[in-house]
Parts: sequence; structure tokens; C-alpha cells
Amino acid sequence: MKVDLNKEHETEIKESLRAKKELIDQALEKYVSWEHKYPPRLLESMRYSLFSGGKRLRPILTLAAGEVVGGEEENLLPFASAIELIHTYSLIHDDLPSMDNDDYRRGRLTNHKVFGEAMAILTGDALFALAFQIITDPALIKNFKPELLLKTINEIAAAAGAEGMVGGQAVDILSVGSKLNKDEVNYIHEKKTGALIRASVRAGGFLGGGSKKKIEALSQYGEKIGLAFQIIDDILDIEGEKEVLGKDTGKDRDKNKATYPAIYGLKESKQKAAQLIEEAIKSLKIFGKKAFFLKDIANFILFRKS
Amino acid sequence: MKVDLNKEHETEIKESLRAKKELIDQALEKYVSWEHKYPPRLLESMRYSLFSGGKRLRPILTLAAGEVVGGEEENLLPFASAIELIHTYSLIHDDLPSMDNDDYRRGRLTNHKVFGEAMAILTGDALFALAFQIITDPALIKNFKPELLLKTINEIAAAAGAEGMVGGQAVDILSVGSKLNKDEVNYIHEKKTGALIRASVRAGGFLGGGSKKKIEALSQYGEKIGLAFQIIDDILDIEGEKEVLGKDTGKDRDKNKATYPAIYGLKESKQKAAQLIEEAIKSLKIFGKKAFFLKDIANFILFRKS
Repeated sequence: MKVDLNKEHETEIKESLRAKKELIDQALEKYVSWEHKYPPRLLESMRYSLFSGGKRLRPILTLAAGEVVGGEEENLLPFASAIELIHTYSLIHDDLPSMDNDDYRRGRLTNHKVFGEAMAILTGDALFALAFQIITDPALIKNFKPELLLKTINEIAAAAGAEGMVGGQAVDILSVGSKLNKDEVNYIHEKKTGALIRASVRAGGFLGGGSKKKIEALSQYGEKIGLAFQIIDDILDIEGEKEVLGKDTGKDRDKNKATYPAIYGLKESKQKAAQLIEEAIKSLKIFGKKAFFLKDIANFILFRKS
Repeated sequence: MKVDLNKEHETEIKESLRAKKELIDQALEKYVSWEHKYPPRLLESMRYSLFSGGKRLRPILTLAAGEVVGGEEENLLPFASAIELIHTYSLIHDDLPSMDNDDYRRGRLTNHKVFGEAMAILTGDALFALAFQIITDPALIKNFKPELLLKTINEIAAAAGAEGMVGGQAVDILSVGSKLNKDEVNYIHEKKTGALIRASVRAGGFLGGGSKKKIEALSQYGEKIGLAFQIIDDILDIEGEKEVLGKDTGKDRDKNKATYPAIYGLKESKQKAAQLIEEAIKSLKIFGKKAFFLKDIANFILFRKS
């Protein structure tokens, strides 16, 4: 995989991402605080999975896309956080014994290994509901036009549901053990991971007040990095180091899962990921130098090791 | 249980409810139609649980509450339907082996018995997401003020989540096998069933443009019938006929579940339910004769056999 970055630039990117991650973590800490009057064990379980060292890639994308079209970070935080809640819920459900049956994620026991299956299902459900509660909370959304909010909520709900993330996961689950063709693997990747990543970017674009042309550019960018992200995920499952990844490698192969490398081979998969990132960066042309952070994120997706 | 209704009035009420149910079914048929480009097996599973002979009580409440404050049925249908989607999702998840482990519901095999656990979880997730997608769909919500929509979505999300339905189910699951006190049983009932029923009524009130005072009256009504509904559910689990209920009876006792009759005894539970319905009807005073259908629904909750 060719990445035109020197070590210094890589370190800079990681540092910016770390700073943004901290912002997101602070916001999440407020929205899912110990002060909430939820059943204590449920709240504990929600927080366990939410604060488990995630990269916060999706919410960072929402902030970055929002800012590139002129939005303010502070205002974007509830939406960015809501998308992370949805992502976390999807991981909890995906890890369940009846789904991917994973015991570890990010180096820690998965939610159902700690809290049991029933609580893991309910924890996912609670996080999903909370996402929509936050982005309709009068105190948090007062700086946006209501029409824009409704459009954004619709985008997020569609990306999370049967025509997006859940649809992709359903096809993935249903196809375990059967041989898939390229179209089917593309479908799973686009929906399961791609849809929410694309929506993270578009949500920022909407809320930041982006023009139709700019939203279109962001959509292109979101689609490309979303697919690249999943391809790299597949590659890391083969080539990654368990200690860095925080989970076992080789699981896709063991489960006979539909992956890019299984269909295209490792070499072609790496080329494809690099090409997608290049295209993603090209689609940012309309923003000029302002797009530097979105570019950095795209490059990070390519050089990440976990 | 004393109900001041003659057989004729009972038949009339059932007939009105049947007509409303048909309206809801038609709307749901549109929103979850075979035309959707979802993975076919997922769509099949969503429809299996959605069209399985539910009473559509919650969406009917939304319509009735909306109309009593001057809303139009046609406009209210997407919201009423969304609430039924959320209710159906919660039933699918509640029936799962790791939760209540129920094989039958409404006389048919539960979702996971037909589609498997993984698909049942994803089907619930998909229905939940679709609910929020429908109530933010520009084509369906154009007759409402955006501010009112956001307020309603917030209400529904809160009622469905950790401070509402999911919270109640979590405490219910966590308390199986342990002896609960009255406060705890009340908490479970209020949250698990009551919260969404109350929100169904309030959503109608908001969208119909009800004044603060009228919303307050509807909230009282919703709270009372919500609790009464769950108490009757508990009673039917003991006294109901399996054939009419469409599910096994005695399951609560077998599972040592927290129920009203277990704490208060059957007689006092029946009195409590009747009293709540009476109070619910009293709280409708502000609407005068217009509230006849809401009264009918309250009475139906008391005399229902399934």
C-alpha cells in the first residue's frame, strides 16, 4: 500500500485525531453520564461499550465535514455523538453469539460476555433510542433550522436501517458459509459499514449548511472512504497484529466470511483501497485548502494499523 | 371486574376499533411494502411480525388523541404507524431466548423461531430505524410544523429508550427470580408498557395541536390506561384462555416474574385496574363529548380477553 506521507505527517494526523476524539469523549460523557436516571446496570453497560477506546472516526467525520462547509464544532457535537451511539449499538449487536459471536473487541471482553446476552441486546436498543433523543433535544439543537434537523435525522435513520447498516449485516449473516460473487460482497461492504460512514459525512454537510454541490462532493468522499475503510478492515483481519487490533485476526476466514481479499486477493484489495482513498481526496477539490483535515482522515484510514 | 357496558356497546366499540385497525394496517402496508429494496429475507421477517394480528392499540390511541384535539387522521397515520413499528420491534426482542424465551405470540411462532435469533435481532433493529425514518420523511410530514415534529420525535425516542420501555424491560430481566417490592413492580410496569402507551397518546396530542392543558389531560389518561393495560395483561396470564390469547398462560408465574397479581393478589389487581380506567376516563372531562372514542378505548382495555 503506497501512502505518500512521511512519519512526521502521520504523527501530526494522529495528534489531530486524538484531540478531536477527546472532544467527542467529553460530549458523550455528558450525554451518557452517571447522572442519568436509568436502571444502574443498564447505564453501566451502555458506558462500558461506549467508553472502550473507540477511534471515534464517524463523529470526527461529522465534525470535519460540518466545519469544511462553515459549521461550528460546538453545535455539531450532539449529532457527531449520536452517530457514535449508533455505531456502538451496532457493534454490541454484531458481537452477539447468534451473530458474529465475538468475545473480544478493542482488547476488552465484548458487552454480552460481561453483561449477558439479554442486557447486551437491550444496551444496543437503549443507545439507538438515545441517539434520536439527543438530536431532538431542544437544549442541544437550538442553533439549527428545524427543517435541516429533520432532513439530517432522516438521513441517519435511513443509513442505520434496512436499506443501510442493518440490511448489510443481515445479508452478511445470511450468507455465512455460501460463496458470494463480487456484487454481493460489494453490497455487504457498502451497506454494513459504508452507509453510516457516508451518513456521518453528509450529516455534517447538511448541518454545516453546505450547498447542494458541496454535499455532493462530501457524499462522494464519504462513499469512497467508507468502502476503503471496510476493505482495510478485511486486510487487517489477515495481516494485522492481534495486540494492535485488540481482537483476534483470521476470524473472517475461520467463519468463511465474505471479504474483499477472499474475492479479489490481498494485492488487488490493497490497490483498490489506495485507489478509493485517492479518489476520495480528489472529490474534495471544491473545498481547496480548507479540506486538509478531511484529507488527513482519508489518509489515516489507509495507514491505520487498528 | 365491573364494567358498566352492555353487550351492544361492547360490540360497537370492537367494531370501531376494527375499522381503525384496518386504517393502520393499510398505512403499514404502504410503509413496509414488498416494493422496498431491503434484503428480501429481512423484509419478509419485518412483515411477518408486523402483520401478525396485533390489536394496533397504540397507533389507534395516537389517532384518537390527535383527533380529540383537532388533528386530521390522514396526517397522523405515519406517526401512529411508527409507534406500532416500535412496539413490534420491542416484542420481537422481548421474545428472544435470552430474554423472555417465548415460542408463541398471537397464536403464531415468534420471529426467532421462524427466522432465527440473528435475524430476529436485526428485524427489531430495522423496524426501530424505520420508525424514525417514516416520521422524518418529507413526503409524509409536510402538514406539520417542523418544531412540533421534533418535539414529538423526542417524546417517542425518550419513551422507547433507557428511561422508558428499554429501561423497564432491563429491570424486568434483571429481577427474574428475585422478590420485588411494590415500588419495583410499579417501576417495571410504568416503564416497560406504560411509557410507550403514554407517548402514543401524547404524540397525538402534540401533532393535533393540543393546548398545554389538553396535553396534560391526555398525559393523565395515557398514564392510567398504560398501567391498567399491563395489570390486565398480568391478570390474563393467570385467568385468560390460551386459545383467545394466542399464547401460553401461566408463563409469568413459571418464570417467577414480577406481576401485579403476585404482589397485590388477583382481587386487588382487578380493583386497581378498574379504578385506573375510571380515573383515566375522568381525566378526559376537558374534552366533553368529543372524547367518546378515547373513553371506549379505555373501557376496551378493561373488558378485553386477549
